[in-house]
Amino acid sequence: MNTQVFEQNLQNLQPEQHQIFEHEIAKANFDLNSYLSERKNQVEAALAQSIEVVYPEKIYEAMNYSLLAGGKRLRPILCLAGCELAGGTVEMAMPTACAVEMIHTMSLIHDDLPAMDNDDYRRGRPTNHKVYGEDIAILAGDGLLAYAFGFIISKTQDVSAPRLLPVVAKLSYAVAATGLVGGQVLDLECEGKQAIDVETLNFIHTHKTGALLEASVLCGAMLAGADDEVLQRLSRYARNIGLAFQIIDDVLDITATSEELGKTSGKDEQVQKATYPSLWGIEESKHQARRLVDAANIELIPFKEKSLPLMAIAEYITNRTH
Amino acid sequence: MNTQVFEQNLQNLQPEQHQIFEHEIAKANFDLNSYLSERKNQVEAALAQSIEVVYPEKIYEAMNYSLLAGGKRLRPILCLAGCELAGGTVEMAMPTACAVEMIHTMSLIHDDLPAMDNDDYRRGRPTNHKVYGEDIAILAGDGLLAYAFGFIISKTQDVSAPRLLPVVAKLSYAVAATGLVGGQVLDLECEGKQAIDVETLNFIHTHKTGALLEASVLCGAMLAGADDEVLQRLSRYARNIGLAFQIIDDVLDITATSEELGKTSGKDEQVQKATYPSLWGIEESKHQARRLVDAANIELIPFKEKSLPLMAIAEYITNRTH
Repeated sequence: MNTQVFEQNLQNLQPEQHQIFEHEIAKANFDLNSYLSERKNQVEAALAQSIEVVYPEKIYEAMNYSLLAGGKRLRPILCLAGCELAGGTVEMAMPTACAVEMIHTMSLIHDDLPAMDNDDYRRGRPTNHKVYGEDIAILAGDGLLAYAFGFIISKTQDVSAPRLLPVVAKLSYAVAATGLVGGQVLDLECEGKQAIDVETLNFIHTHKTGALLEASVLCGAMLAGADDEVLQRLSRYARNIGLAFQIIDDVLDITATSEELGKTSGKDEQVQKATYPSLWGIEESKHQARRLVDAANIELIPFKEKSLPLMAIAEYITNRTH
Repeated sequence: MNTQVFEQNLQNLQPEQHQIFEHEIAKANFDLNSYLSERKNQVEAALAQSIEVVYPEKIYEAMNYSLLAGGKRLRPILCLAGCELAGGTVEMAMPTACAVEMIHTMSLIHDDLPAMDNDDYRRGRPTNHKVYGEDIAILAGDGLLAYAFGFIISKTQDVSAPRLLPVVAKLSYAVAATGLVGGQVLDLECEGKQAIDVETLNFIHTHKTGALLEASVLCGAMLAGADDEVLQRLSRYARNIGLAFQIIDDVLDITATSEELGKTSGKDEQVQKATYPSLWGIEESKHQARRLVDAANIELIPFKEKSLPLMAIAEYITNRTH
C-alpha cells in the first residue's frame, strides 16, 4: 500500500473541511448511534447462528467464545454499509460481514497467544487461550479462518458466482502475508526498536489493521456490483479511516483506562512499542487522525446522502473513547 | 463422516480381490514410480513459483521454508489425478493442488508447535518454529491458510466461476472444525487416554487426515466437472485410502526408524497415544489397511484404465516404508 496516497489527499484538504462533513451529517439528521446499534444487533444475531455447535463441542465452543464476545463489530458494519452504498442489500452482504468478523476474531485469538502479544484479557474477558489452553486457541483461530471462506460461498444469496469469487479472493489476500499477516510480522520485528520511521509504522498498520478494514468495505461494494471508480473511492476512504483508527487506538492506549478499553491499557509504552503518539505526541496524532478522516470523507462526496453511514462511521472513529 | 461406509464396503470384498488390482496394474504396465516422480516434479516446480518473496521477507521465507521442504506431495498428486480421471487436465488443477499443499503445510507447522505436538524435526529438518520462532511459525501457518483460497481463485484457468466456487468451499470445510481442525482437537483431547474405541479413532483420522485427502481428490474431479456419481465413488475411494494411510502411519511409527521417517519415530508410544496398532496389533493393522485399500479400489473399477494412477497410489499407501 502506498502511503503517498494519504499525503496527496491531505494536500488538497482545507482546514475547515471537517466542519462541512459534520454539518452535512447533522443537517441530514443522521443518527449514528441508532444506526450502529441496529446494525450491530443484526450482525450479532447473524453471528450467533453462524457456527453450529456439534461434536467435538469444545472447538466450536472455543470459536464461539471469542466470536460472540461483543466488540464494536466495526468491520461487518463497514461491509454492510459498503454494500448498501453501492446499491445492494444488508441480506446480500451479511454472510461476508460475518466472515470478516470470523477472520478478525482469528487474528485477535492468535495475537493474544503467549508466543505473540501474551495478553490475558480481551473485551473484558479472559483471552481464548486462558480459558481453553494454547493448543485449542491456535486451532480455534485456524478453524475460524478456514470456515470464513466456505461460509461466504455457501450462505450468500442473490449474488452470482462471477461476482462472488473476487470477494473471496480479496478477503484471502487481505489476511495473508500480503495483508494482515504481513503487517503483524513487521510489527513483531519492530518490537522494542526505538527508531521506527513513519513509513514503517504506516506499512505495519495499513496491513495489520488497514487491509481487513479495506476489504470489509470493498467486499460489501463488490457484492453489489460496484464499478471500478466506486471501488477506488471506497478503497481510499477505507485506507484513510484505517490509519486514523490505528492512530486513535495508539492514543487511547495512553489516555484511556483498562476498564474503558476492555483490555490492558498502557501496554504499548510498557513493551516500548513504536506508536504514532511516540513519533508525534498525542495532540499532533489526534490532528493527523482528524485530517485522515476528512480525506476519507472527501472520497464519499459523489455518493451524496448514500454516504451518510460511512461518513458518520469515519467521524465516530476519531471521536470514540474506547 | 460415517464409518459404517467402510464396513459396508468391506463386507462385499473377497479376500483375493487385491491380487486382481495388482494384476490389473501390472498388466497395464503402469509404472507408479515414474508417474509419482513426474507429478512430484511438476508440483514442486509450481510450488516454487507460488509464493513470491517480497517485503517483509521473513514471513515469505518462513512459509517457503516449510512449503518447499519436500515430502511426498501426495495430496497435490491426488488432486491432479482426480482431475485427470474426471476428464480434466493437470494445468486446470495445478493451482488447487498447490493450495491443498499450502493448507497441509499450515497444519504441519501448527501441529509441530510447542503448545501442540512439540516436535523439533519434520522431513529431516528443524521445524518451522525452531528456525523462525513460535510467533512467526503461527503467522506462517495463518498466511499459508489464508493465501490458499485466493491462490485458487486468481490462478485457476479454464474453469468457470460456478464450477470453481464449490471447490473453494469444499476445501474450506475440509480444514475447518468440520474437518482437519475438528479431528485435531479430538486427537488432543484423547492424548494420554488409554481407553479410546475404534469409533473415536476413526473420527479423529477421517477428519484430521481424511478430510483433506478426500477434498484433494474431489476438488480435482470437481474442477473437471465430474457428476455426482463420480464424486461419490471418489469420495469413498478417498475415505478408505485416508484411513489406510493413517493405519500405516501408525504402524511405521513403531516399525520404522526416525531416519526413515524424517521425523521422530516411536513418538506415539512415548506419549501413550491411542493408535490402530495399540488396538489391533501390528499384523491386524496391516491387514485392515490392506482391506481398506481394496475397498477403495473397488470404487474405481468403472473408470477402467483411467483409474490406474489412483489405484496404484492406493497400493503404494500400504506398501510404503516411510
